[in-house]
Amino acid sequence: MQPYELTLTAAAEEIAAGRLSPVELTDSALGRIEATEPAINAFVHVCADLAREQARTAEAEIAAGRYRGPLHGIPLGVKDIYDTAGIPSTSSSKVREGYVPDTDAVAVERLRSAGMVMVGKTHTHEFAYGGRTHTTRNPWDTSRIPGGSSGGSGAAVAVGSCLVGMGTDTAGSIRIPATLCGTVGLKPTHGRTSRRGVTSLSWSLDHVGPLTRNVRDAALVLDVIAGHDPLDPASVDVPVPGYAAGTTGDVRGLRIGVPTNFFFDHVHPDVEASVRAAVDVLVGVGAQTREVTIPYPDQVLAAEWGIVLPEAAAYHQEALRTKGELYRPETRMQLEVGELVLATDYIKALRVRTLIQRAWAQLFADVDVVVAPVQPFAAPVVDQMDVTWPDGTTESVDLAMVRLTSPANLTGLPSIALPTGFDAAGLPLGMQLMGRPFDEATLLDAGTAYEAAAEAVGRLAEVV
Amino acid sequence: MQPYELTLTAAAEEIAAGRLSPVELTDSALGRIEATEPAINAFVHVCADLAREQARTAEAEIAAGRYRGPLHGIPLGVKDIYDTAGIPSTSSSKVREGYVPDTDAVAVERLRSAGMVMVGKTHTHEFAYGGRTHTTRNPWDTSRIPGGSSGGSGAAVAVGSCLVGMGTDTAGSIRIPATLCGTVGLKPTHGRTSRRGVTSLSWSLDHVGPLTRNVRDAALVLDVIAGHDPLDPASVDVPVPGYAAGTTGDVRGLRIGVPTNFFFDHVHPDVEASVRAAVDVLVGVGAQTREVTIPYPDQVLAAEWGIVLPEAAAYHQEALRTKGELYRPETRMQLEVGELVLATDYIKALRVRTLIQRAWAQLFADVDVVVAPVQPFAAPVVDQMDVTWPDGTTESVDLAMVRLTSPANLTGLPSIALPTGFDAAGLPLGMQLMGRPFDEATLLDAGTAYEAAAEAVGRLAEVV
Repeated sequence: MQPYELTLTAAAEEIAAGRLSPVELTDSALGRIEATEPAINAFVHVCADLAREQARTAEAEIAAGRYRGPLHGIPLGVKDIYDTAGIPSTSSSKVREGYVPDTDAVAVERLRSAGMVMVGKTHTHEFAYGGRTHTTRNPWDTSRIPGGSSGGSGAAVAVGSCLVGMGTDTAGSIRIPATLCGTVGLKPTHGRTSRRGVTSLSWSLDHVGPLTRNVRDAALVLDVIAGHDPLDPASVDVPVPGYAAGTTGDVRGLRIGVPTNFFFDHVHPDVEASVRAAVDVLVGVGAQTREVTIPYPDQVLAAEWGIVLPEAAAYHQEALRTKGELYRPETRMQLEVGELVLATDYIKALRVRTLIQRAWAQLFADVDVVVAPVQPFAAPVVDQMDVTWPDGTTESVDLAMVRLTSPANLTGLPSIALPTGFDAAGLPLGMQLMGRPFDEATLLDAGTAYEAAAEAVGRLAEVV
Repeated sequence: MQPYELTLTAAAEEIAAGRLSPVELTDSALGRIEATEPAINAFVHVCADLAREQARTAEAEIAAGRYRGPLHGIPLGVKDIYDTAGIPSTSSSKVREGYVPDTDAVAVERLRSAGMVMVGKTHTHEFAYGGRTHTTRNPWDTSRIPGGSSGGSGAAVAVGSCLVGMGTDTAGSIRIPATLCGTVGLKPTHGRTSRRGVTSLSWSLDHVGPLTRNVRDAALVLDVIAGHDPLDPASVDVPVPGYAAGTTGDVRGLRIGVPTNFFFDHVHPDVEASVRAAVDVLVGVGAQTREVTIPYPDQVLAAEWGIVLPEAAAYHQEALRTKGELYRPETRMQLEVGELVLATDYIKALRVRTLIQRAWAQLFADVDVVVAPVQPFAAPVVDQMDVTWPDGTTESVDLAMVRLTSPANLTGLPSIALPTGFDAAGLPLGMQLMGRPFDEATLLDAGTAYEAAAEAVGRLAEVV
């Protein structure tokens, strides 16, 4: 077994025990990058020299007894829409060519302070405004997309190029690539993690969170990035529990809401079977199920896009005027459409969101988590634009990818995506668990319980 | 002295001591209404029979030992944009003719439960969308406007038709009529009082609060209407102190911020002199002054209108389509302009508001309250459209009226307007004290201290 194959949890144990050096681990990850990048192109920028330097520093600190904790010396990939001091931060766009920030985004600064070794910046769908990540391929099948917008982090974590990848999630952008690439992806509650220093897509829906190899790894990262930031207007001052330390994996008596509508409509049978089997696994270790009705199913995408379109357009307005030709055509088109949205329509979307939020809050009176598919299908092939369902209806792949993830963005509720196995073609499938505001702990417990009881999860991708 | 001339505080003492009956007090207020309405027209609807019935009930309850507290048996006027069960609630608009709600607005329900006697519904500028209140005249000079939008409550409280008038404040609509009519007006912190059941003008700026004869009266009302309402999305779950009981009127060591810009620009010399004299009064009883610079002075009106225009248009959109001809022409024009605002412009206004909020929060690191004029002038004559300043610039009266009040709406900070005396023509002048979020208590202390030390406040208007 190569060091890069270790989970964060396992690598941290080895490092803490002195059996693995951060330098060795980093070299192993950099080697994996070298081996896999030609096929998957997960990284905008690999900072091998800087990473080796950070790894040597970590090694020296640990040798000197200054061990900072489980993230110390662990290779990290950071989505390129995060500002990273002294390192180009392009948002995978020509619009940002040459942009080198002076300071790290808050999340990056915290992870670096915890001793992580940044091996590079991972590709995003341009400015996080889409689910494909055109630059990058899915390591499980390089004819397919990795999902997006955090597609580089998804592919990199799945293939072993880093042990943790940071992502952002506005309509599913952490959970979509996590599921299509077979990793864990955690979108915390809105306001739980600071977005300061991360290029905004739609600030009232944007979330910062990690993609990891397993649930405990996600808890370890959340331990470091969670907390109040007075300079992020959406940040909420709620106490931060010890996520990793507090995770028991005990789900006895947990009430799992299984949707009777929306989440299993227009979903591939393999996905549905995999999620329902995962629910059975959780029931087998003590959870209970209850049927839940998802509120406002027909308003989800209208509200999501009614908010994203104008918020993104407002953010990009000046660049669109001065550098419009540097955007990808689809991105530019979406931004231009956003400029046409009336304030009254945006306000209607905000009001519908409030109704959706209230209705979901009531739903959680009867259940502790809601389980659902993340994606209606396994990874689509590159350039597949439409999907046709058995009832004859045809749906845009781009809209289908955000259909099941957007509710947790509109509500701001925490959601963790977990691999639940593979389809017949060997492509990863996944489920998401959504919870109450700031109750990430229950999601981590349920996810840990599932991982412990299930079998078909946790392996790394060989690039094929 | 007639019973209607009593303050709430004084009337409550008399009632509690058995020296005044709620019936006698209500009859006195109804008599005052009859005497003054031909000249000032403060009420849309006077409910004399209902008021007398409520007063008899109060009298009987008190006689039976079931005294509910200081509001029991006190005559109340309610701005007509509050829903009142079984009583027409027209928002002073033909659009709402025939609208009779089934339930009381939360604030009204609380005041009624505290035993108040509603004598009638007071006029508002149509749908609270302006500062004039065209229907109503200023009791200090009936050739002049009472201000608005809570102009009916301002005129009614000033003249003695009720002891408390409820108002709403989106760009100054409690404080403007309070100052132009010579009453106290309290706009609590955004989220302190529920707006449920009150017709919205611009929900992210709307506030519910009272107009009263003095500061203690405002504290007694706030004691009843403050508190969390989960069904008002802007309501905040912050503990409610005992406002009246906690008010000491001690301002020793209080740091009063005196603006060096914005608030004294383009303000009539009489207004400036009156406010500065009021500051001297507070300094005389132990307060200190510090100079403060008001942030983003040139962005205040742009942000305020960039938010109000589209939020009002969104709320009225359906009625504008189906009953557009029933609005007053200016109201309709403002709503139609609001429909043309782009989402990106509204979003920019929201972002500017966030900057303004942050900057004001920093300002309060050094001071406990900020003092300022409420209005740049005393009550304008009806149909005065413009004001010309000594430097030759001409300003719209309508914009001038909201220029100094809007900062407390954009920031959501609490603000209390207090009478500071009269100009040479006998028209009331006033100041406002703005404080930290949810720190109404400090404003009430400072206002109480001022009232105790000053002389030229507190008399009722004779209609002239």
